[in-house]
Amino acid sequence: KINGDRLWDSLMEMAKIGPGVAGGNNRQTLTDEDAEGRALYKSWCDAAGLTTGVDSMGNMFARREGTDPDALPVYVGSHLDTQPTGGKYDGVLGVLGGLEIIRTLNDLGIKTKHPIVVTNWTNEEGTRYAPAMLASGVFAGKHTEEWAKDRLDADGKRFGDELKRIGWEGDEPVGDRKMHAFFELHIEQGPILEAEEKDIGVVTHGQGLRWIECTITGKDSHTGSTPMHMRKNAGRGLALITELVHEIAMKNQPNAVGAIGHIEVYPNSRNVIPGKVVFTVDMRTHLLDKLNAMVAKFDERAPKLCEEVGVEFSSEIVGQFDPPAFDEGCVKAVRDAAERLGYSHMDIVSGAGHDACWINDVAPTAMVMCPCVDGLSHNEAEEISKEWATAGTDVLMHAVVETAGI
Amino acid sequence: KINGDRLWDSLMEMAKIGPGVAGGNNRQTLTDEDAEGRALYKSWCDAAGLTTGVDSMGNMFARREGTDPDALPVYVGSHLDTQPTGGKYDGVLGVLGGLEIIRTLNDLGIKTKHPIVVTNWTNEEGTRYAPAMLASGVFAGKHTEEWAKDRLDADGKRFGDELKRIGWEGDEPVGDRKMHAFFELHIEQGPILEAEEKDIGVVTHGQGLRWIECTITGKDSHTGSTPMHMRKNAGRGLALITELVHEIAMKNQPNAVGAIGHIEVYPNSRNVIPGKVVFTVDMRTHLLDKLNAMVAKFDERAPKLCEEVGVEFSSEIVGQFDPPAFDEGCVKAVRDAAERLGYSHMDIVSGAGHDACWINDVAPTAMVMCPCVDGLSHNEAEEISKEWATAGTDVLMHAVVETAGI
Ligand SMILES: NC(=O)NCCC(=O)O
Ligand SMILES: NC(=O)NCCC(=O)O
Repeated sequence: KINGDRLWDSLMEMAKIGPGVAGGNNRQTLTDEDAEGRALYKSWCDAAGLTTGVDSMGNMFARREGTDPDALPVYVGSHLDTQPTGGKYDGVLGVLGGLEIIRTLNDLGIKTKHPIVVTNWTNEEGTRYAPAMLASGVFAGKHTEEWAKDRLDADGKRFGDELKRIGWEGDEPVGDRKMHAFFELHIEQGPILEAEEKDIGVVTHGQGLRWIECTITGKDSHTGSTPMHMRKNAGRGLALITELVHEIAMKNQPNAVGAIGHIEVYPNSRNVIPGKVVFTVDMRTHLLDKLNAMVAKFDERAPKLCEEVGVEFSSEIVGQFDPPAFDEGCVKAVRDAAERLGYSHMDIVSGAGHDACWINDVAPTAMVMCPCVDGLSHNEAEEISKEWATAGTDVLMHAVVETAGI
Repeated sequence: KINGDRLWDSLMEMAKIGPGVAGGNNRQTLTDEDAEGRALYKSWCDAAGLTTGVDSMGNMFARREGTDPDALPVYVGSHLDTQPTGGKYDGVLGVLGGLEIIRTLNDLGIKTKHPIVVTNWTNEEGTRYAPAMLASGVFAGKHTEEWAKDRLDADGKRFGDELKRIGWEGDEPVGDRKMHAFFELHIEQGPILEAEEKDIGVVTHGQGLRWIECTITGKDSHTGSTPMHMRKNAGRGLALITELVHEIAMKNQPNAVGAIGHIEVYPNSRNVIPGKVVFTVDMRTHLLDKLNAMVAKFDERAPKLCEEVGVEFSSEIVGQFDPPAFDEGCVKAVRDAAERLGYSHMDIVSGAGHDACWINDVAPTAMVMCPCVDGLSHNEAEEISKEWATAGTDVLMHAVVETAGI
């Protein structure tokens, strides 16, 4: 069993970097705070005797040698970046849980046949740079490195420039590493495990996702002196599409979601009718056909609604992945570990996207989930118990060691 | 008649300060660009032999002496600040038109009985600091100076601190100056004069205004993993209220308007359900009873709509003025001047708020309007012709000189 207190102390230590405004964290990708978090994590990896490497997307790898020189490593990890108002566990638990496995194996003097590599994937959250899971996506061949590095944040800063600026552009080519398997531990970010009183979620599938960036163009003009019939109010397009997205998700229950999280209004002045609104629709479900039908309905209705209120609509997909099905062998290793350790468990579908969803395409992959209070995540009040974190990391260790062999 | 070429040259010279991104201006109040524009304008006042003074709200006064030492001055002017994506004429024409009157009287060697004072009122636009017409409002006793100076911009910067920072906090007490009359020339910012092919709008009334700042509170949580029935999406409240405001304005036709121009979404991340949205509703009409009824309908419906979608609603008035009726004598002076000069004219209601609406409460006041292309304002593409600017300034001069006496 792992050392739950040590794991918890490391989580709390990391949470001091990039504190939020309400007890959580703002350690967004490629900020100074991200750099600081990475440095702290690397110092821990060094102290644990690991060999560290960084690829040119900033993905960090910390390796513990195995006994078989020809065996491919078992990878384990998640991400250290957070939402702008994020919690202390989303992503961080998966990285520091991976490190805790190493520390425990070191304590116990256990050698595995396959090496074990703990990873920190760059820009999982996708807030500062869309899409989410950007660097694991490049690793898995979903995006080119050039395209990824050209992504811009809201201030027009390039991903590639910011990665250089914070000093974490490594020299390893992205995606060259071959994996025996990949495991990711993550908090559920939803309410199911807590409601069902289970310690462990054995993740069999994930939801697919579409991020549709929409631009509605009206005409900015004076709110007081422009007669109603002469207006082209882009805000009305946003209003109708907000309700459309909600409606589409509701019509596809159960197991479908949708909302608009990011909205920019131009020129955003109290007495100016919005001339342009740019926003991103996020729609998800775990069934590919349903997901495509939801998007088709959106593509059909959104331009019509905008036309009805006299504004123009255009859209572009800025993030997408199809619903992943994880590797049966790896999923079984997770389920068996939970069973063996005596933790209550259930099979579950991941509501969120994870680096594991991309890595699943290039290596046998599975995920371990632990509950979080009220299913709340992407909120500074995100909370888990030390017991949940410990149980999840125990199961992660047993699945990893089982797969890496002794 | 005034010198239209000289007026136009000054307009173009001023427009070089704080250029926008699409041919217009971004010279928002109390920015470095505002300071630069003020300095240029003061240099022109000095060159025209005027005595300048600045009050502690940054309002600028440039005085040309009259022949009667006991006569109160006739004031004339508008504002030099602009919207973030504003035009070159909104406000500026009224200040530089006032200066052009002085230059013309100097050229012709005409002395008036009453002094003439040209004013530049601080923060008319109300974008950076709500409410609009802030400093003329303090001058007219509508707000206390302390309250006004405590207004915060979106970055939390105090009005009073920014006024000091740009070096334009004067030492005159605000509102001490007594006026014989006040005249303001302004572009219409609406489509009526152009459609009716009139050179001059004789402004008899203005619309009343209510700015209602609304806060909708939901719960920020993960867009992918929060089931639909557990969501509190503040964005849905915004959507329903956007349509409510439109509906209220439409039900009160003719002569009522409403829209939401300024919207802030928190935390504004693609994969986070908005936990809070703050926005300002702008509703106007020129009939006080109707305006109050519109607000009453809003106050009744908005909280209910939010309740229906499971989010909380609160609101606060952050700007308001009742529909002004301008002074009959001053209005007549404007109408007579247009008639005498042979310009086509019509009586008109101002759709926008103006400093004149506040000054109207402390001095006999009227406004002159000239057309603008397509009625477009609060847009960088705002356009007027040199002929329109010249006609408006001619009428302004004749009304002012008539009132100031020779
Ligand atoms: N785990 C997580 O919140 N990932 C961000 C990508 C997503 O929106 O699902
Ligand atoms: N003239 C003008 O645009 N003033 C700003 C105040 C308003 O919104 O009417």
